[in-house]
Amino acid sequence: MIKVIILGFGNVGKHLYQAFSRTSKVDVIQIYNRSQINLPEGFQTNFTTEISQLKEADLYIIAVPDDTIKEVSETLPIKNKLVVHTSGSVSLNHLSDSNKKGVFYPLQTFSKNAEVDFKTIPICIEANSKEDLKTLKQLGFFISDNVKEINSNERKQLHLSAVFVNNFVNYLYQVGSDLLLENSLSFDLLKPLIKETANKIENLNPADSQTGPAKRNDLKTIENHLHLLEDSPYKEIYKLMTKEIQNKYLKDTRLRGHDHGKKL
Amino acid sequence: MIKVIILGFGNVGKHLYQAFSRTSKVDVIQIYNRSQINLPEGFQTNFTTEISQLKEADLYIIAVPDDTIKEVSETLPIKNKLVVHTSGSVSLNHLSDSNKKGVFYPLQTFSKNAEVDFKTIPICIEANSKEDLKTLKQLGFFISDNVKEINSNERKQLHLSAVFVNNFVNYLYQVGSDLLLENSLSFDLLKPLIKETANKIENLNPADSQTGPAKRNDLKTIENHLHLLEDSPYKEIYKLMTKEIQNKYLKDTRLRGHDHGKKL
Repeated sequence: MIKVIILGFGNVGKHLYQAFSRTSKVDVIQIYNRSQINLPEGFQTNFTTEISQLKEADLYIIAVPDDTIKEVSETLPIKNKLVVHTSGSVSLNHLSDSNKKGVFYPLQTFSKNAEVDFKTIPICIEANSKEDLKTLKQLGFFISDNVKEINSNERKQLHLSAVFVNNFVNYLYQVGSDLLLENSLSFDLLKPLIKETANKIENLNPADSQTGPAKRNDLKTIENHLHLLEDSPYKEIYKLMTKEIQNKYLKDTRLRGHDHGKKL
Repeated sequence: MIKVIILGFGNVGKHLYQAFSRTSKVDVIQIYNRSQINLPEGFQTNFTTEISQLKEADLYIIAVPDDTIKEVSETLPIKNKLVVHTSGSVSLNHLSDSNKKGVFYPLQTFSKNAEVDFKTIPICIEANSKEDLKTLKQLGFFISDNVKEINSNERKQLHLSAVFVNNFVNYLYQVGSDLLLENSLSFDLLKPLIKETANKIENLNPADSQTGPAKRNDLKTIENHLHLLEDSPYKEIYKLMTKEIQNKYLKDTRLRGHDHGKKL
C-alpha cells in the first residue's frame, strides 16, 4: 500500500485522485489545495489549505500549474521524502533539493467533466534513483498498463508533440465547426470524419494516410478553397498547412518517382 | 431493389461497392474502370473498361477523380438516367445535361486497407427533382443512418471544413510522429491522447475543450517550445497556430472578463 498526498486539486489532481481511488493498492491520505474548494458530497479524504498541516506519506504529488511547482516544492515542510510533479514541460530539477525528486506525468488531456480511462494512458516517470523509479513504476502500473521511463529532455519533446496533436488539432476542430456554423450547418456532420481520422493512426502511419488537395497538388480545388476563405481569419492557416503538405509530398514524390493519390 | 453501376473503382468506388454488397436492396450490376485492375478472387460483378459497354441501370455513380467527373459524365452512352458523382468539391452542374444530375457524397476518409462502417457516415445528397432526391435518399439509408440533403454551396463549405479536420489534422499527427522519431521516441505514446482529443468532441464544444500554452498565454512554455523547434521545419506552424489561438482566447477572455485555464 503506497500512502500518497496530492497537492493541487485541479483537473490533473482530481483525475489522479479518482484513478487512485479505484485501486486498493494506493491510499490517498490527504489532499492539499491552496484555496478552499467545493468537495463532492461524502468526500472522506482529509483536505487542507494549510501546507504546514501536511501529513507523513510515502509520496507527495504536486499537481499545480507549471509556474508554481518550484514554489510549492520549496515550501513543503518535509525532508528526504519522494516528491514528484506531473508536468510535461517542467524539468525534474525544478523541484526543491530538500527532497527526493521525481516526475509522474500522465500524457493525456483532462477536462473537468470528461471521465478518463487511465488504463491506456502513458504514465511517463523519472527519478534520480533506482529505488524511487521502482516506487513510481509501481504506482503507475496500479492505474495504467503503460508506464515508461522518460527523461526530462525526452519529456519536453513529448510535450511539444502533444501540443501539435492535441492543442493544435483541437483548434482545427474549432475552425471546422466555425466554418460550418457560418453556413448554418451542424458540426455533427464532421464528427464521424474526425473520429475516423484519429482511429486510422492505429494501423496506418500518418504519412501514409495523408489525403486531400494539398497532398495531390490539386491546385484548382486549393484555389476554390482560398476563394471561399477570402475574408476568413482561417485563410492564413489554410495557406501555410497547404504549403507545408505540398512541400513534403512533392519532395517525397520526386524521391519515389510516383504518387498514390487518395481522395478525401 | 435499386440497380446501380459504379464508374471508377478507386477508394470511394470500392468502399461504396462493399457497402452496397451488404444490403439486398441494392444490386450493383456492373463496375466500369478506365483501366484493367486486379479484382479480388471470386469477384462476381460484371466489370468493363469499355464505357460503350455500359448496361441499363437505375443509377450511375461516378466515383472518379474530381477533374475527370465532367469528362466521364459527357461520354456516358445513356440518356435521361440519374447520374450522380461522389465529390465534395464539384458542383452538381458539372455533370452533363444529357442525364438527370445528382450528388451522393459520403463525408468520410477512405484508405485502401481500412474497413469503414458506413452506418454513421453522413451521406450528403443533392438532385434537381423530388423524385431523384427520393431515390438517393432511399439508397443512402440502405447503407447509412445519416442521410442529409445538402446543396452544392453547402457541400463546398463542408468539404473545406473537412480539409481542416481531416487533411490538416492528419498532417499534425505526422508532425507529432516526426518530432518523436527525431528523439527516438515511439509514436505509440501519443496515440491515446490523439484518440481522446477526437472523442472529446462528442460531448464538448471544441472551443470549450481547448487547452495548452497558447490558450493560457503561457509565454515561458511557448518560448521553450520555439527554442526546441529552432531548426525545425515545423516552427512556422507552431508560431502561426499559437498566434491564432492566443488571438482567439485573449479576445474571448477580455469579452468574458475571466479565464478558465485548463492544462494539457
